[in-house]
Amino acid sequence: MISTHLPPLYIGEWLNTPSSDFNAFASGRVVLLHAFQMLCPGCVYHSLPQLKSVAEAYSPEQVSVVGLHSVFEHHAAMSSTSLKAFISEMGITYPIGIDLPGHGAIPQTMAHYQMRGTPSLLIFDASANLRFHHFGRLSDMQLSAMLGQALWCDESAELAISGSTGCSL
Amino acid sequence: MISTHLPPLYIGEWLNTPSSDFNAFASGRVVLLHAFQMLCPGCVYHSLPQLKSVAEAYSPEQVSVVGLHSVFEHHAAMSSTSLKAFISEMGITYPIGIDLPGHGAIPQTMAHYQMRGTPSLLIFDASANLRFHHFGRLSDMQLSAMLGQALWCDESAELAISGSTGCSL
Amino acid sequence: MISTHLPPLYIGEWLNTPSSDFNAFASGRVVLLHAFQMLCPGCVYHSLPQLKSVAEAYSPEQVSVVGLHSVFEHHAAMSSTSLKAFISEMGITYPIGIDLPGHGAIPQTMAHYQMRGTPSLLIFDASANLRFHHFGRLSDMQLSAMLGQALWCDESAELAISGSTGCSL
Amino acid sequence: MISTHLPPLYIGEWLNTPSSDFNAFASGRVVLLHAFQMLCPGCVYHSLPQLKSVAEAYSPEQVSVVGLHSVFEHHAAMSSTSLKAFISEMGITYPIGIDLPGHGAIPQTMAHYQMRGTPSLLIFDASANLRFHHFGRLSDMQLSAMLGQALWCDESAELAISGSTGCSL
Repeated sequence: MISTHLPPLYIGEWLNTPSSDFNAFASGRVVLLHAFQMLCPGCVYHSLPQLKSVAEAYSPEQVSVVGLHSVFEHHAAMSSTSLKAFISEMGITYPIGIDLPGHGAIPQTMAHYQMRGTPSLLIFDASANLRFHHFGRLSDMQLSAMLGQALWCDESAELAISGSTGCSL
Repeated sequence: MISTHLPPLYIGEWLNTPSSDFNAFASGRVVLLHAFQMLCPGCVYHSLPQLKSVAEAYSPEQVSVVGLHSVFEHHAAMSSTSLKAFISEMGITYPIGIDLPGHGAIPQTMAHYQMRGTPSLLIFDASANLRFHHFGRLSDMQLSAMLGQALWCDESAELAISGSTGCSL
Repeated sequence: MISTHLPPLYIGEWLNTPSSDFNAFASGRVVLLHAFQMLCPGCVYHSLPQLKSVAEAYSPEQVSVVGLHSVFEHHAAMSSTSLKAFISEMGITYPIGIDLPGHGAIPQTMAHYQMRGTPSLLIFDASANLRFHHFGRLSDMQLSAMLGQALWCDESAELAISGSTGCSL
Repeated sequence: MISTHLPPLYIGEWLNTPSSDFNAFASGRVVLLHAFQMLCPGCVYHSLPQLKSVAEAYSPEQVSVVGLHSVFEHHAAMSSTSLKAFISEMGITYPIGIDLPGHGAIPQTMAHYQMRGTPSLLIFDASANLRFHHFGRLSDMQLSAMLGQALWCDESAELAISGSTGCSL
């Protein structure tokens, strides 16, 4: 655990947090980064309720949930004004970064991580290693298995351990 | 990981398994022991569907799901004849042990583990340590967090580690 | 509305009702007859919760829910002893008739109405006409549409009315 | 059924319909008017999925579903630009009228019908009588019971009929 410096996010504005330093509020813990669009049905109906379940099963000291609003379509419809009302109405309290617009339709963080769409989940462990990158829906059981692995299964251990209780799903 | 010998279950008959040796088919892996009654609504509507989600998120080499039919009421209504039809209709394929009747209404394994009712969940790690004992419902996210901890978080580590990424929920 | 005499059911034993006269407690209202087996997954997971929703949307004076335990498989597993415990545990309070065994596996009421399996729903209107006979699952919206039609749409009107607001789904 | 002229809606713009004449496309059928806001959680999570179930149980000749976007808060966040993207992403195909802004926060149709908030449901029968006005959530079974009553139960009959099969819930 030499470094715990999370890789950069390209963020235009942070909501729900006084800090604009991703590392300041998220490093040293497992980070569940949720890339979404406020008008994406899979995000609204599946991922957002799921993130509430995460907060019921894991403490904030264990898993830091961070939203990333990565708009790649209907840009005018999903302005920061609309997003702020959405966050308020949906009762979302974790930090949300607005992905910085890129040259084309794809915003910069989304492009940097080569995300295929929304919802996308990125899970970093407490040593700031990217452990999972998933596009689309996961069951609660599957997502929690990934979080558990990021929390309690040393990446280095994956090399040493072989067998059924080793560090892989 | 000196011993992986699971503690005894008091079983009258095993279903869905040729072996009657709990240790033979379950040891060396995380064991999710599900104590239920076939006519318990919480078991039927919550736990049994949840165990199907476990099998979708974890491989059988990681988590061994085992049922324990611990009847403490309506004994005549939940005979082994009725249980076998229930298992067949519900499509349950994991091993199920029928808890051995005790002197009173409470069967012997249920009494041994001082279970408070059904559904009850007991989670053993691969070293055969009892890690969790829960009566009632858990969310999928919570159950999976317990399984992850049993799988990937050394019990001995719990003593050494303090802090947010340590081995506790 | 000359006669309101419901057709016969072949019942060995009535539960949850002091009367054994189907017509005495059900006639003059819409009757929702639910043929089920206590170990049929579609009945347990879909129909039984749905019947609770019926009772929340319609008064007992409007819709009389009646269960029919029509066992055509696993007969020994679904005895009246098991059924009584099932009813108690599931909190079912409406009358349930145990379909009378026939010569083969199929009980007599099930055979009389040529039911294809369980769950089957039969809806009679207040004039004792059989208005709907459905095998398998229905959405709450669909079932309620059938109940509304049986309640408020005269069967004779079906002949006279043509057009979008006529008495047919 | 002398007149089937629906009462006026105060609409700034109609979406999903070439006509701007509410009566032209909705009269002569039961009309289910759904007042919503695109960022209202109860609308998004409960009512909108429910309206899809309506379309599965009733034909468009029986029940005409019409949306009414009645924004009374976060006006800038729920512009017509945002609404159009919302409708497209959610796959909504029935006509939606944008409620005309009033003098204060409350738009004109919402004020005219004295709606208490969103979601609100208004059900008109084929004779253009307002039969139900409900604020908040309804179960599918309850909503369908209201639709059935509007479809098949003559309002005039309510006066003539007394008893359990009469025209009231």
